[in-house]
Amino acid sequence: MGKLMDAKHLSGLVDKYVEAFEQGSLELIKEIFADDAIVDDPVGSDSRIGIDTIVEFYKTGFDAGAKIALNGPVRCAGNSVAFPFSVDAMGMKIQVIDVFDVNADGKVSHMKAYWGPENCA
Amino acid sequence: MGKLMDAKHLSGLVDKYVEAFEQGSLELIKEIFADDAIVDDPVGSDSRIGIDTIVEFYKTGFDAGAKIALNGPVRCAGNSVAFPFSVDAMGMKIQVIDVFDVNADGKVSHMKAYWGPENCA
Repeated sequence: MGKLMDAKHLSGLVDKYVEAFEQGSLELIKEIFADDAIVDDPVGSDSRIGIDTIVEFYKTGFDAGAKIALNGPVRCAGNSVAFPFSVDAMGMKIQVIDVFDVNADGKVSHMKAYWGPENCA
Repeated sequence: MGKLMDAKHLSGLVDKYVEAFEQGSLELIKEIFADDAIVDDPVGSDSRIGIDTIVEFYKTGFDAGAKIALNGPVRCAGNSVAFPFSVDAMGMKIQVIDVFDVNADGKVSHMKAYWGPENCA
């Protein structure tokens, strides 16, 4: 599978992701994701493919005032990182687990968000 | 991606997985995993492929007295389920996130365990 990513880099991507929501920063989203990245949010829905589509997706979330908060430790493994968090948006709180797969350039090539109706309150 | 799994079935697999550790039951492991399943534990290490190899892997864990405890909600999405837990084994506690991908027969076809040295205490 090629060179393994440094755990510090992987958890740094998660920190940057939380910061992107705090600041509503699409620039940070562009730093985090590869140009040809895929976002499955939630897993099982149609994939969002490519940085333009992904930026548009996060713009919608940021415009709605979505904020996220980690609620457990970040798990780094191989070239991936998984982390549990809650997202607050439009009066709803959702418990999510995200997995980032990271490419050789250190950018997220595939993001998978695991959550369903049972995780919404 | 074919028919989507029922969330009740997906979270039931997680309940059965916890029960397998409680009882040290390899029979339950055989009920949970497909014959041609793949286990990546941790992600980034060599895959364990096929039910015999997988049963042997869990036998080693059960023989060592490994126990697991969920520490956050189970997230069902599409044909997958992700869940955070800790595993206690040989005086160590590890914080893990597992993802189960489930096949059309309702069995786990791919298990990915996300954890690294930073998650061991």
